[in-house]
Amino acid sequence: MPAKNMDEIVALCKRRGFIFQSSEIYGGLQGTYDFGPLGVELKNNLKNAWWEAMVYENDNIEGLDSSILTNPLVLKYSGHEDTFSDPMVDCKSCNLRFRADQVPEHCKDEDLTEPRQFNLMFKTNVGPIEDGSNYAYLRPETAQQIFTNFKNVLDSTSKPIPFGIAQVGKAFRNEITPRNFIFRVREFEQMELEYFVMPGEDEDAHTLWVQKRVEWWDKQGVPTKSLELYDVPTEELAHYSKKTVDLMYKFPHGLEELEGIANRTDFDLGSHSKKQDELNITSKVNVNKHSNSKMAVQNESGDWVVPYVIEPSAGVERGFLAIINEAYTDEELEDGKSRIVLKLKPHLSPVKAAVIPLKKNNEDIVNTAKNIKDDLQKIGLGRIILENTGNIGKSYRKHDEIGTPLCITVDFDTLDDNSVTIRDRDTMSQKRIQISDLANYLIELVKK
Amino acid sequence: MPAKNMDEIVALCKRRGFIFQSSEIYGGLQGTYDFGPLGVELKNNLKNAWWEAMVYENDNIEGLDSSILTNPLVLKYSGHEDTFSDPMVDCKSCNLRFRADQVPEHCKDEDLTEPRQFNLMFKTNVGPIEDGSNYAYLRPETAQQIFTNFKNVLDSTSKPIPFGIAQVGKAFRNEITPRNFIFRVREFEQMELEYFVMPGEDEDAHTLWVQKRVEWWDKQGVPTKSLELYDVPTEELAHYSKKTVDLMYKFPHGLEELEGIANRTDFDLGSHSKKQDELNITSKVNVNKHSNSKMAVQNESGDWVVPYVIEPSAGVERGFLAIINEAYTDEELEDGKSRIVLKLKPHLSPVKAAVIPLKKNNEDIVNTAKNIKDDLQKIGLGRIILENTGNIGKSYRKHDEIGTPLCITVDFDTLDDNSVTIRDRDTMSQKRIQISDLANYLIELVKK
Repeated sequence: MPAKNMDEIVALCKRRGFIFQSSEIYGGLQGTYDFGPLGVELKNNLKNAWWEAMVYENDNIEGLDSSILTNPLVLKYSGHEDTFSDPMVDCKSCNLRFRADQVPEHCKDEDLTEPRQFNLMFKTNVGPIEDGSNYAYLRPETAQQIFTNFKNVLDSTSKPIPFGIAQVGKAFRNEITPRNFIFRVREFEQMELEYFVMPGEDEDAHTLWVQKRVEWWDKQGVPTKSLELYDVPTEELAHYSKKTVDLMYKFPHGLEELEGIANRTDFDLGSHSKKQDELNITSKVNVNKHSNSKMAVQNESGDWVVPYVIEPSAGVERGFLAIINEAYTDEELEDGKSRIVLKLKPHLSPVKAAVIPLKKNNEDIVNTAKNIKDDLQKIGLGRIILENTGNIGKSYRKHDEIGTPLCITVDFDTLDDNSVTIRDRDTMSQKRIQISDLANYLIELVKK
Repeated sequence: MPAKNMDEIVALCKRRGFIFQSSEIYGGLQGTYDFGPLGVELKNNLKNAWWEAMVYENDNIEGLDSSILTNPLVLKYSGHEDTFSDPMVDCKSCNLRFRADQVPEHCKDEDLTEPRQFNLMFKTNVGPIEDGSNYAYLRPETAQQIFTNFKNVLDSTSKPIPFGIAQVGKAFRNEITPRNFIFRVREFEQMELEYFVMPGEDEDAHTLWVQKRVEWWDKQGVPTKSLELYDVPTEELAHYSKKTVDLMYKFPHGLEELEGIANRTDFDLGSHSKKQDELNITSKVNVNKHSNSKMAVQNESGDWVVPYVIEPSAGVERGFLAIINEAYTDEELEDGKSRIVLKLKPHLSPVKAAVIPLKKNNEDIVNTAKNIKDDLQKIGLGRIILENTGNIGKSYRKHDEIGTPLCITVDFDTLDDNSVTIRDRDTMSQKRIQISDLANYLIELVKK
């Protein structure tokens, strides 16, 4: 039961502290956002769920955390310096600049300049000399430093092919027109896996990863029925891509890509390799005069082979938006009232449980609640909150809106019999259980 | 028993996949590093330990994850545009540029230019117009966007003072001379808490945070006896700082700052506030003509007061280096041989347990080992590895070097009686336990 529109989501995110405009007190900075107290938890939970599914559950996938500042040669040989650009036009009448496919209607054709290519990478001077010769790019994707570290990871972990390298981190694109809240922004996070296989095993691996990624999103609360698989037609594919399937999701602003799973052949490792002419690279790569690493492995016959790569590449913010959108529920209640509830999967909820003393000034009740909070916190499931407002109804409404799966109320009876009232977010049903049973109850709830 | 020198640490980090030079295949990019499969786990574990100690254990501390790209007005009013710089000289003889306090001996005084101020912030053009009027900085510290979000966090969480905002994330400084491995780099991560208190409560809060931070480092394996508290003398303090205590650690290259705990008075909120003249700001702030937010709270008498801020600010890479240095042990064994072992605190270890089949090709043994790995992985303590090399001795040596607290060997007896051999990293003692007892054993070990 997704939200009706983006405005509802933006309002909830601001009100409850999920997402704020960045540099807001100075008018903002277009295309950048800050994640508030709840947003940072949801975002971290999502990234952790991905990391667990990739690195922890697969013995042949290793993690990486590379730098954002990137040597220009990396982006030269990856092709980004030449091709990572959008066509741009100027309107001679209003003096504004637009992406060629996004010119507003009031700009007349005869006023527009010819489209020019505008590179989307951010550049910055590095070191004390500012003559333009020393610069780095902010990486436009996390993938490239995975490729450049191929041999480092291989050598330090002794992995046979197939194996993968996974990375989560920031990427930066100087979008001409950032828009649709956190969907298209200039600073964002990616979750990218580069899965290296021997040529010939690539098609099966691609099919398998499409299936695995759809299943993973389902577990995060983006159900399979909400995704459309878009098999990118040959004429739209990048020249090195053999096949790409995009997972399309109906965001509040329209159907757009949530994740892409590409078969990138041997283009990436081939592009970054030395001694390219000895390697039978099948894709069209530029001659590399700078790399000091041979990006190949020996097959059973002892021949050097450049592995193919399957790349599932997902956007963290897009995932965040899809998950909030799916979870957002404006629910009619039996008494004629309504409530807003975020039906997040419990492992993603920013707060796992709220412990609420019935009376905010009763020392015994409050101390008991504090002890419960501390004990549940130690299990290590995520954030547990002591919600000492003295207003149970208001606390329930807040925790419905922020998606807390469990509210635990400590009252006078608790002091007598060590029982508490627990309330389920989705059903709103309440029951009494013993304090000693809380830990297992919460573990079951969050790990189900 | 710290490492003898930095070279030993660098070699281990490269060999085992903790840290690689960034963009290495293209000759690197000075002052940037990539964290490999083990480094990313240790770094994440360290950041998580900090987050838990700050955000999860304190109901009055909230988290934040703000953007790296920062509106220049933020860094104008913070003072960074004017003062975040190092003095720099050019040598007319060798044509190189140095920090004024780091000129090599072979450059003679008469050849040096007068020192000029060099701002350490990275700048990048934002948006499609490249005329220099549209730019952002890469944040030089995570702190400033905590201050600019003060009201956003306050309004969305309804916290009374004292309360804190914690952030972990990347920061960038265009160091003239990056050096000492990951100690002084151009791209790094910070763990910063800004703890807001009413004036008058600041000195006690400062004392308390110094103590808490020392205790926290002790739990991470940097013992209190290895830290020196440096009470920064008045003449060295920034003009707004009332008191700063640096936690100094003897790194392999010398005694240097690991973390600083500063009493920054009302300078930060005062600097970013509108209506400054109504607020009785005690520190010397520049007139703010741009902020749209009043960075103040009402005290019990209804007067508007700008809170003071206590800032414990730690470097993730510096912590990483100190922790590895303390854990690194070159140990003489009874048989005259020696071993290198990383005696990391188990909660920081990149791998929590290695499950090792005695025979790599025995299907029953390997499947049993896989099941053990999967079951232990599900507990959620961190990475568990199936180490199927068929060489127990080599596996032990590897896991000693990377700091894995527990090795679990599955052999033929396991198939009969469901027992396994567990080996303790530090004592090297071995014993048999039941598979069904492994989970609790590991939980005890990691959470102790």
